[in-house]
Amino acid sequence: MESTVAALTAEFGNLVVTAAATREQHGNTASWVENQPPDAVVFPQCTADVQQIVRICAANGVPIIPFGTGTSLEGQVNAPFGGISVDTRDMNKVLAVHSEDLDVVVEPGVTRKQLNEHLRDQGLFFPLDPGADAALGGMAATRCSGTNAVRYGTMKDVTLAMKVVLANGEEMITGRRAKKSSAGYDLTRLFVGSEGTLGIITELTLKLHGIPEAISGGVCPFPTVEAACNAVITTIQTGIPVARIELMDALQVKAVNAYSRLTLPETPVLFVEFHGSEASVAEQSAHFGEIAQEFGGGPFDWATRAEDRTKLWQARHDAYWAAGALRRGSKSIASDVCVPISRLAECVAATQVDIAASGLVAPIVGHVGDGNFHLALLVDTDDHAEVSRAKALLERLVERALAMDGTCSGEHGIGQGKMKYLDAELGKPALAVMAAIKAALDPAGILNPGKIVACG
Amino acid sequence: MESTVAALTAEFGNLVVTAAATREQHGNTASWVENQPPDAVVFPQCTADVQQIVRICAANGVPIIPFGTGTSLEGQVNAPFGGISVDTRDMNKVLAVHSEDLDVVVEPGVTRKQLNEHLRDQGLFFPLDPGADAALGGMAATRCSGTNAVRYGTMKDVTLAMKVVLANGEEMITGRRAKKSSAGYDLTRLFVGSEGTLGIITELTLKLHGIPEAISGGVCPFPTVEAACNAVITTIQTGIPVARIELMDALQVKAVNAYSRLTLPETPVLFVEFHGSEASVAEQSAHFGEIAQEFGGGPFDWATRAEDRTKLWQARHDAYWAAGALRRGSKSIASDVCVPISRLAECVAATQVDIAASGLVAPIVGHVGDGNFHLALLVDTDDHAEVSRAKALLERLVERALAMDGTCSGEHGIGQGKMKYLDAELGKPALAVMAAIKAALDPAGILNPGKIVACG
Repeated sequence: MESTVAALTAEFGNLVVTAAATREQHGNTASWVENQPPDAVVFPQCTADVQQIVRICAANGVPIIPFGTGTSLEGQVNAPFGGISVDTRDMNKVLAVHSEDLDVVVEPGVTRKQLNEHLRDQGLFFPLDPGADAALGGMAATRCSGTNAVRYGTMKDVTLAMKVVLANGEEMITGRRAKKSSAGYDLTRLFVGSEGTLGIITELTLKLHGIPEAISGGVCPFPTVEAACNAVITTIQTGIPVARIELMDALQVKAVNAYSRLTLPETPVLFVEFHGSEASVAEQSAHFGEIAQEFGGGPFDWATRAEDRTKLWQARHDAYWAAGALRRGSKSIASDVCVPISRLAECVAATQVDIAASGLVAPIVGHVGDGNFHLALLVDTDDHAEVSRAKALLERLVERALAMDGTCSGEHGIGQGKMKYLDAELGKPALAVMAAIKAALDPAGILNPGKIVACG
Repeated sequence: MESTVAALTAEFGNLVVTAAATREQHGNTASWVENQPPDAVVFPQCTADVQQIVRICAANGVPIIPFGTGTSLEGQVNAPFGGISVDTRDMNKVLAVHSEDLDVVVEPGVTRKQLNEHLRDQGLFFPLDPGADAALGGMAATRCSGTNAVRYGTMKDVTLAMKVVLANGEEMITGRRAKKSSAGYDLTRLFVGSEGTLGIITELTLKLHGIPEAISGGVCPFPTVEAACNAVITTIQTGIPVARIELMDALQVKAVNAYSRLTLPETPVLFVEFHGSEASVAEQSAHFGEIAQEFGGGPFDWATRAEDRTKLWQARHDAYWAAGALRRGSKSIASDVCVPISRLAECVAATQVDIAASGLVAPIVGHVGDGNFHLALLVDTDDHAEVSRAKALLERLVERALAMDGTCSGEHGIGQGKMKYLDAELGKPALAVMAAIKAALDPAGILNPGKIVACG
């Protein structure tokens, strides 16, 4: 390790940092797993730098942990075996905007807000929004989705192609800029969601959309979570192209009211947004209002002003912090599952019962158009009994989701935190295939070891 | 081989067929590559049968070639090394329709028309439409797309999960029924488009859509291919959610008029269709009409009756046969490329010039919303000079597409016909990764060898 750091320092000078604070920040994790800092952090400026870093680490068998903004939630950037954190912060250039093709080429350190600032003048936007101002490389690596995914898809859908540095230091492209291709194995989708375990993303070509002519939306209260979920099912089934449709349970609304100084009714609510022409958003909104009413929800005031809408969505984004503020001094453990939408109400309701029975505090938010919801489990980590109850609750959450043909991770990835669930979800043959792919592409096991699949 | 066929016959009786006509039909190819029939064809009835077939073939090192309806275009079902064609014709059950979740579970031999017949009563439909009534297993295996892909995506987008039999005979699931997941490597997308070289698909979970309340659409003539392409770019950029937008060049329109007894103007035309509410399709159609006019196109008569629309789209589907009828006795070699939409007009126009200069007959149709277009090259295969000119033309077509950051195959896959282009498109590191994945999952090279990547 020492010689690796020395070799990196010889090459990259003060772009190699070994200060404890920097290392700890790069081992950031929002999971149960403790902070496991890398031995050093290096800040490449270009793909060639990443190749050089990989070659140096590979020569010494030293782990490489790619780092975007460190906003992943399952320990993806932790360094359980030590190693070098490769922070793409400085690779933050928007390389090309192709407005006619509705795509953009970026370096991996560009964040989603930075990209949207860059695009605004051209009437274009990048729709994915996980809340945090995450780096696009990290968003691809964890197969991020977020609030707009119900309409615009996840990172697997919006990533056209990538440039990746492989374990041997070679640079590979995963695809071309054509909107579709059937040319061989889908390397783009293989690397989206691979969490740095197969290669390091150094360039991304992403799909864009025109900024919609009109946006409408607002908040709609419901008597129960079931009623809200049933309204969502009907909305999706009717083909209303809703852009975002987000559930908060009553506890989360209470948290948001306190944190963001709102006066929402403290019942389950849906935050809803429609994109389209003036006429189309009016029609969509009215239609949704009727559906909500059918299920006992409403009133749905959709003709909100842009400022009010911005305030609402800011509150939605701050839900994680608002939840944390419900119980000062607690650690917020965020976990998510995703189930077929027909099972969503049942899954959320059973989880609420379980939370209450466990004596825990855990507000719920959900990207319910996709059947995806999150707990923010507020835990006093000094109380071992409570930690045990919380861990058991999360185990049951995943079991419940899997029993409903769902997944242990809708959008947070696997990282360290959810490796133990993959067998129950997909079975041994799938795990063996993942391990075979990992071994084929990274035989020495130097790329983000200890994530997704066990090495060697 | 003899002992393999004997072992299969002992197990499956008269579901193993060695008659020459059946074998030849299963080596069907629309490419330059000659018919290479398998040694036998077997008709499994269930996943367990497929597992048993794979185990018998694996024990003898005999190639296995999965077969759906044989409508692939690049020699995907050919048997260059002999072997056993596994025809999923009898695995044709729709296993479950989840109308609330908008998904369906099917066996791989179910065809898209059969599925839509099955779904119609429930107000649901499966949007992908490659023209041929292909089997859904084959559509997934070749990463099919077709006319509706511009709005509803390709098989990579609509396949939620699959059951796959691996080279060792084990059954694997690639995912669960949740609408999204970030649980590990994207095995679903790895197998979509793998053309039977990594495993045999024995079950698919596919996304569905509600049948739209209203459909409108029609044909819009344009003075030039460029004008039509520019209208498409503006339509997409404006965010009009067009369901299909298909280009035919003047020669293809002439062919269609003759074949389908239509009287379309023999200029470049766009076939366009909109899905939505009554108000929304009216708005979309009117908006598109304005865009068309802006580029010198029109008139666009969108208020067509359902019967007229059906007739038009039937004509579009019959374009391949119509093209063939332009030159009786010729072989129709279908090839496609896909480029960024900004380069589409230039690519089509340059290709038309090249066709004319080569003295060949090759009408053009295109899924232009995706930047994807097809040639139907009508060749007298007894005329060696003409065959040479035709082959050279197709080489230049791919070169032209790649030079424009496009792909050698928008939706026909790689099969045998396009293996030689993968290096130029993606480079050696990508090919090495594909070969490593192939070797990791099929070390003996028995799964559809000679397709996509060279084995061993």
